[in-house]
Amino acid sequence: MQFSDNPSEASRPFLTWQNIIDWAQTHYRDRIFRKDEQIPARPQLLYLVNQGAVRLIGKVPDDKSYDFQVESTESPLDSDRAEESFLGFIRSGQPFEIVSQSSFSLHAYAHVDHTHVIWLYWSDLENWPHFRQEIYEAFRYQHQRKLLWLSALGQRRTIDRLTSFLTLLIEEYGDDYEQNYCLPYTLTHAQIGSAIGSTRVTVTRLMGKLRRQGVISIQEDNSICLINNYSIKNNTKP
Amino acid sequence: MQFSDNPSEASRPFLTWQNIIDWAQTHYRDRIFRKDEQIPARPQLLYLVNQGAVRLIGKVPDDKSYDFQVESTESPLDSDRAEESFLGFIRSGQPFEIVSQSSFSLHAYAHVDHTHVIWLYWSDLENWPHFRQEIYEAFRYQHQRKLLWLSALGQRRTIDRLTSFLTLLIEEYGDDYEQNYCLPYTLTHAQIGSAIGSTRVTVTRLMGKLRRQGVISIQEDNSICLINNYSIKNNTKP
Repeated sequence: MQFSDNPSEASRPFLTWQNIIDWAQTHYRDRIFRKDEQIPARPQLLYLVNQGAVRLIGKVPDDKSYDFQVESTESPLDSDRAEESFLGFIRSGQPFEIVSQSSFSLHAYAHVDHTHVIWLYWSDLENWPHFRQEIYEAFRYQHQRKLLWLSALGQRRTIDRLTSFLTLLIEEYGDDYEQNYCLPYTLTHAQIGSAIGSTRVTVTRLMGKLRRQGVISIQEDNSICLINNYSIKNNTKP
Repeated sequence: MQFSDNPSEASRPFLTWQNIIDWAQTHYRDRIFRKDEQIPARPQLLYLVNQGAVRLIGKVPDDKSYDFQVESTESPLDSDRAEESFLGFIRSGQPFEIVSQSSFSLHAYAHVDHTHVIWLYWSDLENWPHFRQEIYEAFRYQHQRKLLWLSALGQRRTIDRLTSFLTLLIEEYGDDYEQNYCLPYTLTHAQIGSAIGSTRVTVTRLMGKLRRQGVISIQEDNSICLINNYSIKNNTKP
């Protein structure tokens, strides 16, 4: 169902992946990005992350035709910033695309240094029907994960949204590390807040609480781990 | 990209759809559901809505291993209810599936009376490769919509989440009605609250505000409309 860095783990023929990377490089359809550099992704194109990781961001339209009173208790400085939402990672071996079907917009950034991305048209995949099938399966899987993510965000209490969000994220991307599951990427508290409809300040306070409760721990490199006994019951990693 | 009720609007051959419905009925793989009746959907199966509409619901695990103080100001009665999140509609002509890859779970309910659903295995679609391709395209489209929905929910202010949520929903499902776009299904304020991480009470208050501001209007049958000048800039309906 999912692609993998390690060809021995994956059911897909590794040769196809390498063929496509080679083809993209031959056709100047690849580029390496620095951490936090925006990937100038366009609709209609399909992108594959060959190395590193990509961060997806959503933006809501800023030309809203209404002007309500601020309801939250945030400082004006916080509220003034254009709202960007963290929508998840695309890791090495996974595809992504940027839609343009709404006033809402999606954007992609390299999340780590040396993120290597290639791009192609869907029609280019006609030469590789099995690979195209795998791309569809990858999007089907991503869709299923986003439905779970939406479930998490429907919760009223910020601490519940935060805990569920971290659980889902680590369930999907986490690595085994001394019997805990840890996120292999760092995320700032502002980025976490932008995913769960909260603020940096609130996330910092609640992360402290989760740490004291023994739900999460923070590694020296700032990566977030779920403590062993806070079970990920059905780990879905391939 | 999307299926349609009306065969003349759709690029797919109408015959395939009818063939599949016939095949499902011959094999006793169809059923008609009453409004709010749960569809006993199982993972691994693929479901097609032939008539009516389905409501997807997400549930978060209720056996959380932590027990935090309630942070919200909701009444105990509100907070005691198991949290279910509204995740969207699957309308006639669209597929859905129920994943089981996490402690989070998805559930499907008929949203209107006489909702007719058929089901099949993915392998059954080997006889209809073009149709299978369309199913994948439909899930790809649904995934893109859910990314926009996640962007909406990342906003801090409840009124912003509510406005964006209604905009996205009506953009996707809305019908043209006297120059406004209206949702063809009713949604309770509790259901809206469950989608945007808020409560029935807050949604009722903010819906009143949006009405007074002329952003939305409510029809006699309780359906929600976006007022004409609150533009849906790029209508995505097929």
